[in-house]
Amino acid sequence: MSELRKDPLVDRWVIIAAERGRRPDDFHSGEPARHCPAGASCPFCEGSESKTPPETWAVRPLDSKPDTPAWQVPVLPNKFPALRVEGSVDRCGLGMFDCMDGIGAHEVVIESPDHEWEMTTAPPEEIELSLRAVQERIEDLYRDGRFRYVVAFRNYGALAGASLSHPHSQLIALPVMPKRVKDKLASARDHYRRKERCIFCDIIAQELMLGDRVVVEHEHFVALSPYAARFPFELAIYPKEHQHDFGLLNLELRTDLARILQTCLRYLKQALGDPAYNYMINSVPNTTPRPGRPDFWGTIALDYHWHIEILPRVTRVAGFEWGTGFYINPVAPEDAALFLREMVNTEPEPAVVEASE
Amino acid sequence: MSELRKDPLVDRWVIIAAERGRRPDDFHSGEPARHCPAGASCPFCEGSESKTPPETWAVRPLDSKPDTPAWQVPVLPNKFPALRVEGSVDRCGLGMFDCMDGIGAHEVVIESPDHEWEMTTAPPEEIELSLRAVQERIEDLYRDGRFRYVVAFRNYGALAGASLSHPHSQLIALPVMPKRVKDKLASARDHYRRKERCIFCDIIAQELMLGDRVVVEHEHFVALSPYAARFPFELAIYPKEHQHDFGLLNLELRTDLARILQTCLRYLKQALGDPAYNYMINSVPNTTPRPGRPDFWGTIALDYHWHIEILPRVTRVAGFEWGTGFYINPVAPEDAALFLREMVNTEPEPAVVEASE
Repeated sequence: MSELRKDPLVDRWVIIAAERGRRPDDFHSGEPARHCPAGASCPFCEGSESKTPPETWAVRPLDSKPDTPAWQVPVLPNKFPALRVEGSVDRCGLGMFDCMDGIGAHEVVIESPDHEWEMTTAPPEEIELSLRAVQERIEDLYRDGRFRYVVAFRNYGALAGASLSHPHSQLIALPVMPKRVKDKLASARDHYRRKERCIFCDIIAQELMLGDRVVVEHEHFVALSPYAARFPFELAIYPKEHQHDFGLLNLELRTDLARILQTCLRYLKQALGDPAYNYMINSVPNTTPRPGRPDFWGTIALDYHWHIEILPRVTRVAGFEWGTGFYINPVAPEDAALFLREMVNTEPEPAVVEASE
Repeated sequence: MSELRKDPLVDRWVIIAAERGRRPDDFHSGEPARHCPAGASCPFCEGSESKTPPETWAVRPLDSKPDTPAWQVPVLPNKFPALRVEGSVDRCGLGMFDCMDGIGAHEVVIESPDHEWEMTTAPPEEIELSLRAVQERIEDLYRDGRFRYVVAFRNYGALAGASLSHPHSQLIALPVMPKRVKDKLASARDHYRRKERCIFCDIIAQELMLGDRVVVEHEHFVALSPYAARFPFELAIYPKEHQHDFGLLNLELRTDLARILQTCLRYLKQALGDPAYNYMINSVPNTTPRPGRPDFWGTIALDYHWHIEILPRVTRVAGFEWGTGFYINPVAPEDAALFLREMVNTEPEPAVVEASE
């Protein structure tokens, strides 16, 4: 079983997942690449259902059985999970150190039965479906009170940490609140206490007014390159109306989100030549009022605002960044946004016509 | 001029160094590798002095002139600095955003005139010299009250962000205190307030007592794999006696440090096959009592303890880590330490005989 350990100096937890049992040789040239051609050898291709753990959730025809072909967007437990569902949340100490069992959940959302499916060219309805899968899984995992936070993310390309090339996203449920989330919540709460306004709403309003970092604006969403972007062409997507919980998205919003997400990824592909990237869906923690929780009476959390961060992996993180938490970004976010915006005009496909700027 | 910008959500500063002026094409396959064969085309090889900015510091024969061959360990301003010395520390606002001029310093310590010099095989005196160069530069930079923190680091290998292969380290002086340093100082201060003991001293004492994460122990230093290591084979080196300031190292300590640092890097090379790595020297900020400052009367800061972190870059940071600040480490630090310790016995070279365990 893996173990959660807390750094005594910086309130940071790590997952020691030693049962994945690697030898030093495995690291000789970085992360071992697990190649995955389409077909029988790919564990996520149609027909490989017997090679993976049983599905947790799927969209499939009414007359089909679980764990058989004909699925669309199944969600499976990760075969090599960093955390497992079984165990207690009891904390233990080792002298001055803190640890707990590595409980949690680690799931994989297979975005299409087609190995060659690409988010940049897929019909938006299919992206919408995989966003719905993420949404449903977060909702379900939050029914387990042990889980304080669920993060959903997509690693694309080996440089971004993807080990299988079949299109997929992942979810990890954590029994402790991650420091990065805690920091964001604390800032947001502090701002709300002083101003009685959501800090994200304030940022969005200012960015829409200034306009120079906005990449594309849809009816319900805006994509921009953040003022203090860490990486070249880093992007963030926000719902324009205040919404704290990714679980509250309805079909109309999900569809608009699928479209703007696709537009962003297509622009990045065109600008940077199919870069590796990570994107993360940052929703609200499980401790906030939300549908399905006994304390939810239609209230909304006013101080948090869910969002997606997209990080193209085109620069390397080096000693300066590791030592300080500072980042050096060689491309001003305004320049990145301008460059991407200008591609709207040269973009041949009709899918971006809805861009309202 | 570059610009410092603060993320309104997470108290994180970034350096927008757009004057380095890259086009999106430059990022097409990640960071452009600047190859650097030995000789005339390498800006750090002997004879290339005219290609670099004038030296700031160097060890050289008494009868030689600055910026001519015959140097050992010169320190040069970075030709493409992320931050520049000229400018004010005035902060400005842009609506709800905070920014300031990109002032600071960015220097390169050339560790040897020999392009093929390696830290794992060099005579320890030469490593000691480059540690002294770092020390002298930190001292000098801290005479400038605008600089709140100086971090020294070494990026080795392209995966660790090194763009030139000639052996070198770097220093960056910052006009704001980095969040990561602030967090460490806050924990250390909190511990000291409660216990009247240094948290680092407590950790070292416990690790030496338990022993299972200790890799090698010298007279003045101990190298161990931290309890909550983020990465496989991550190591940390601490002075065993309390010492808050890297600037206080004398020749004896510097020599011992050079040896234990070399042992660690040699072990990692043997275990992981010449991995890329970053190491960072984390000394005390400029705001703490220190020699040369008017408020220093021989006092020592009791709550901070300088240290070196060594991060082999053998796994990739992916969406989960970016989204949460959590890390998944597939090798327990005890296993890594055991593996490295066992190499002491198989190590052919005599340089590690001083290891006292």
